[in-house]
Amino acid sequence: MKQSSSVFEGVYSRGRVPAQVSGRAWLQALLDFEAALARAQARAGIVSADDAEAIAAVCDADRYDVAEISAGAAEIGNPAGAVVKALKAAVDAPVHHGATSQDAVDTAAMLVAKRALLPLRDDLHGAADIAARLAEEHRDTPIRGRTLLQAAQPTTFGLKAAGWALELDEAADWLGRVRLSYQLGGPVGTLEPLKLDLDLDASPLPWHTLRSHVGELAGALGVAAGTVGKAARDITLLAQSEVREVREHLGGGSTSMPHKHNPIAAISALGCAMQAPGLVATLLAAMIQEHERAAGAWHSEWKPLTDLFTLTGSAAAWLRESLDGLEVDAERMRANVGHAEPDTGAAAALVDRALESR
Amino acid sequence: MKQSSSVFEGVYSRGRVPAQVSGRAWLQALLDFEAALARAQARAGIVSADDAEAIAAVCDADRYDVAEISAGAAEIGNPAGAVVKALKAAVDAPVHHGATSQDAVDTAAMLVAKRALLPLRDDLHGAADIAARLAEEHRDTPIRGRTLLQAAQPTTFGLKAAGWALELDEAADWLGRVRLSYQLGGPVGTLEPLKLDLDLDASPLPWHTLRSHVGELAGALGVAAGTVGKAARDITLLAQSEVREVREHLGGGSTSMPHKHNPIAAISALGCAMQAPGLVATLLAAMIQEHERAAGAWHSEWKPLTDLFTLTGSAAAWLRESLDGLEVDAERMRANVGHAEPDTGAAAALVDRALESR
Amino acid sequence: MKQSSSVFEGVYSRGRVPAQVSGRAWLQALLDFEAALARAQARAGIVSADDAEAIAAVCDADRYDVAEISAGAAEIGNPAGAVVKALKAAVDAPVHHGATSQDAVDTAAMLVAKRALLPLRDDLHGAADIAARLAEEHRDTPIRGRTLLQAAQPTTFGLKAAGWALELDEAADWLGRVRLSYQLGGPVGTLEPLKLDLDLDASPLPWHTLRSHVGELAGALGVAAGTVGKAARDITLLAQSEVREVREHLGGGSTSMPHKHNPIAAISALGCAMQAPGLVATLLAAMIQEHERAAGAWHSEWKPLTDLFTLTGSAAAWLRESLDGLEVDAERMRANVGHAEPDTGAAAALVDRALESR
Amino acid sequence: MKQSSSVFEGVYSRGRVPAQVSGRAWLQALLDFEAALARAQARAGIVSADDAEAIAAVCDADRYDVAEISAGAAEIGNPAGAVVKALKAAVDAPVHHGATSQDAVDTAAMLVAKRALLPLRDDLHGAADIAARLAEEHRDTPIRGRTLLQAAQPTTFGLKAAGWALELDEAADWLGRVRLSYQLGGPVGTLEPLKLDLDLDASPLPWHTLRSHVGELAGALGVAAGTVGKAARDITLLAQSEVREVREHLGGGSTSMPHKHNPIAAISALGCAMQAPGLVATLLAAMIQEHERAAGAWHSEWKPLTDLFTLTGSAAAWLRESLDGLEVDAERMRANVGHAEPDTGAAAALVDRALESR
Repeated sequence: MKQSSSVFEGVYSRGRVPAQVSGRAWLQALLDFEAALARAQARAGIVSADDAEAIAAVCDADRYDVAEISAGAAEIGNPAGAVVKALKAAVDAPVHHGATSQDAVDTAAMLVAKRALLPLRDDLHGAADIAARLAEEHRDTPIRGRTLLQAAQPTTFGLKAAGWALELDEAADWLGRVRLSYQLGGPVGTLEPLKLDLDLDASPLPWHTLRSHVGELAGALGVAAGTVGKAARDITLLAQSEVREVREHLGGGSTSMPHKHNPIAAISALGCAMQAPGLVATLLAAMIQEHERAAGAWHSEWKPLTDLFTLTGSAAAWLRESLDGLEVDAERMRANVGHAEPDTGAAAALVDRALESR
Repeated sequence: MKQSSSVFEGVYSRGRVPAQVSGRAWLQALLDFEAALARAQARAGIVSADDAEAIAAVCDADRYDVAEISAGAAEIGNPAGAVVKALKAAVDAPVHHGATSQDAVDTAAMLVAKRALLPLRDDLHGAADIAARLAEEHRDTPIRGRTLLQAAQPTTFGLKAAGWALELDEAADWLGRVRLSYQLGGPVGTLEPLKLDLDLDASPLPWHTLRSHVGELAGALGVAAGTVGKAARDITLLAQSEVREVREHLGGGSTSMPHKHNPIAAISALGCAMQAPGLVATLLAAMIQEHERAAGAWHSEWKPLTDLFTLTGSAAAWLRESLDGLEVDAERMRANVGHAEPDTGAAAALVDRALESR
Repeated sequence: MKQSSSVFEGVYSRGRVPAQVSGRAWLQALLDFEAALARAQARAGIVSADDAEAIAAVCDADRYDVAEISAGAAEIGNPAGAVVKALKAAVDAPVHHGATSQDAVDTAAMLVAKRALLPLRDDLHGAADIAARLAEEHRDTPIRGRTLLQAAQPTTFGLKAAGWALELDEAADWLGRVRLSYQLGGPVGTLEPLKLDLDLDASPLPWHTLRSHVGELAGALGVAAGTVGKAARDITLLAQSEVREVREHLGGGSTSMPHKHNPIAAISALGCAMQAPGLVATLLAAMIQEHERAAGAWHSEWKPLTDLFTLTGSAAAWLRESLDGLEVDAERMRANVGHAEPDTGAAAALVDRALESR
Repeated sequence: MKQSSSVFEGVYSRGRVPAQVSGRAWLQALLDFEAALARAQARAGIVSADDAEAIAAVCDADRYDVAEISAGAAEIGNPAGAVVKALKAAVDAPVHHGATSQDAVDTAAMLVAKRALLPLRDDLHGAADIAARLAEEHRDTPIRGRTLLQAAQPTTFGLKAAGWALELDEAADWLGRVRLSYQLGGPVGTLEPLKLDLDLDASPLPWHTLRSHVGELAGALGVAAGTVGKAARDITLLAQSEVREVREHLGGGSTSMPHKHNPIAAISALGCAMQAPGLVATLLAAMIQEHERAAGAWHSEWKPLTDLFTLTGSAAAWLRESLDGLEVDAERMRANVGHAEPDTGAAAALVDRALESR
């Protein structure tokens, strides 16, 4: 039996993002770099077209063993060398010609990011869509406004949900603004620019130790995790036994109290999202890189970047599930307000405005 | 004698940013909110034009005492109440009408940010300009490429400096993309939208507990600190006694070794920049805010935001000083390369490309 | 009017700890080092007894200006040089003989820490004492157990409060176990050991770049902040309008809703405590220091250490105030349980056991 | 082929610690809790001795599938339920009687920690031993003192290595002082105390939401990572091409520059150690837990705790390898000092003192 994975993956690996940053996904991205490099060099007349196609033909992750690549990573401090070695065993052609490990690993990081952003942004927007539907449906449903956890004037549940929707949208948009560029600089970053045919931008310079790409991405992932966490926190508070204004469809019991109806999806979203800030800090701290290749800071990026995607993606997926089929108890909300006829006109108008702005 | 300030301010408060986030600057921003609110309400016919102007007339920080406002902050957990109280003592008019503390404090935060971003971005671009001049001047100056702190193929000092320039520009641009909106939601965020005449955006909804604005700003400041730190780290490494390729103009001695020529500006830049990631983490963690006003998370934002601006701004100012008049020893660089005629053509071409892209 | 301090100090500077890490406190600690050094050197026959006493006589912070020292800090990147200069202007004697800036600043840091730990630990134990009294008083008061914010079996409020008490005690004890040693190594840490007569330990070696002292202290402060935050979080949740089981004596209104009874002390405690983890991360990251004196990492310690003390101390002081006079609504607790006769025997027995263990 | 693991494990999973926090290790620890619980209940007459032994007999991780347990974790938000379910399928006896999920998971966390601390502390002490041998051997070897990365008075390499040794020892000792207690509180923490026969302490109260244990452990792991990072940073700096005073035995080339002699072990140690501070921050932030079981904060602990052990353990293992067989170029050190006869007596005496203090 496979015993290497974590017993916690059920909580921390939810939805479609984790697969995009798995060992296999990284390996495929490393191979995609090598294929794109060979083809670009063929176009430039540096290697032959036949060689390039021969290389590209073996750039399929299914042919290689992640564990072997990983073991090889220990030899030079990153997995690119082991990938090149495996390719060279598979094909007799000039693999990785003129490139450096960091070209492969950095480009792979950006490819992995690009691919992981698709389901991540989709889950953020998907959660926003459900929140927006709740906002529309409960445009006028009065709910107690709560400031500093104390009862305040009424608002509407629609406005609360509209706020979640706009924030989730904003986080997805902000992620969409992050630059993702391939890397191709050679040993010390002086390689003549060559266009790689990958779904990534070109940068004006090799960015081996210029890590703003990574920093921007880290910050934007942290913001996304925060927006997910805010909605999830509200759901857990609204679901409190003393409040009982929402109930998770998914909600499950516990080992000792099977009758309980715990908002497991929102709780899991929080459990994932709360890990983001520390990982962002690690990635920002790692921006201070020495000369043409950092001795340690670069090596400290791969795991937090992978984990930040996994956790932010899982948080978004959990939130989407939590919102999907969330049982809203409008009667209870009304009762908790305690007024007979709360004035919800301004809140409702804001809901309209918010939904129009999407 | 004034004994309250830190003995370390000489290191941590450099350049023009710290003044933009000082107690006085925050107080003025809080007052600017109250003035803008009164005028907007006058335009909407909610208060009289005379009252609005009477209010605006006393919204000058010089009239009030930061220490008194600060002491008052303890009473309700934020300084807005004390500001309102001070204003009401100064003018008999409907101050802060319909607004909530968080409207004032959040708007003030955004105003302070807007104002602090001007010198910050200017110092980032200013440092980039000097780096770009170094890049141009040393377009062809060969320098040892150093990967993992080991000698590798040569590059040029121009390319190194061009990388610093582009990163600093990028950080300034990214900071320019962050949304900064005023806040006006009233007690629970349902206030009918009213346009405040401040140099800030309007947001579709009050964002009392929707903190993506703050998170985006935090992330972008963290990136800026990282780009400054990278250049400063390189300078300290190039200035090593064993390398001696650059020397800071400012460089000073120590209490025990007055003859030393320490790169104090670059070191101070690092000392400031290295504090950024932890503060970013605090601000991202604070995004998980409850309901309509958070009980604690909001209150944990003001200091890290202020400090993050102070430190990132000081780091940028120190770096600008470090670069300004940096003594570059091209002969020594050449000698350290160890080749008679290193080929620097590709590096030089990349410098041209980089400088054109600015 | 003094305009330099923060408008937020009312929230962030509570109780007696902040004064122990103020600019004046640091300055006095720097001076205490110089006095202790001179006297130790007099004992060792290195300087004359008269000179030592002449130096010690002017080592009084009231004689100097923090702002001037701070400005001087910019020259060599730390304040020790400015202190030495000021002393040399005040007395004609061999000040700072053989020592290095870092000897002064590190020793001052440990002195400041030692002095700040007194009120901090006192406030932690003081808060624990009040919690213990609540535990005793409410040993049998049934309260709804709440897991994942959902109602579960009953417990007693006494057991809840006993848990707070034990954690606060434990945090204070853990802080008491941290080593605090003076520093005296000279320019590169090779100075012959000389016993300084300060209330600090001797370490086997100069620890200029061996920062476990600082790291241990940082971790322990982070734990203290966390234990304060836990109790404060519970109080804010118990004070919710839907729960109303406790009410802060201090509780105040807001600018827009003066009738509200917000648990301002607990909220402020949270606002302070939530800033600790990021600062701890900064201090731990700064442990990676180069050779005999770090170029940046050392310089990044002083502010986070000062702030971590200020915020942890303020959090503890706020919590102590929150607990002091906390109004406990035992009837409401009982009613919220919803059983006629909940069995609280096991919880009550645990309270006894916990209180005995103090 | 197994494709789920990371391609970076070669770097991030070094030495013997990672196996102690693997999925299998966690599963075994969860099972150890259930076995110990059943036996304790047998001793107390709550379950029969036969049942207890029947339960204990199936508490072997090899009988179960980590992936299945992990998938089950998604149902209630933690893996304990799935473990109980698997056990109940294996044996007809009162498994997990009276306990709650958190009892199992928290006790497992402490068991895993206890077991991981053995090789971790051993590698810290082991690295310290090698450093101490270097210190002894190079007690008198002069080396340039370097402050702020600038040449200063000479010291000896022995003193540098002695500093590493003492710090590593101290970190191991500090880890040894952390309390590790089992958890047994039942649904809301009111269970009558029952002694579990595990190699863990008893705590005076169930500590479901009293997380100082976890916080202390996190801080101490962060300190350990920092002490490893300091030594590794020095090694990378001493190995610089311009300094060449040490060379790693392991050192390897790169994909583009096979001739290079990169200090891969020290670099990998840094790559691991630099990730620690952010994870510590996450664990400290998670200390603020609600009521009797936290909704999210608890769930955010398991991964950072596991990763913090993995990375700190790998860092220590890498450093031990780096130090083991480190080639020290005493001639070069002497030459870099530049004096004919540097006075190293004081440094050498400090080495003696340091080694005696071990």
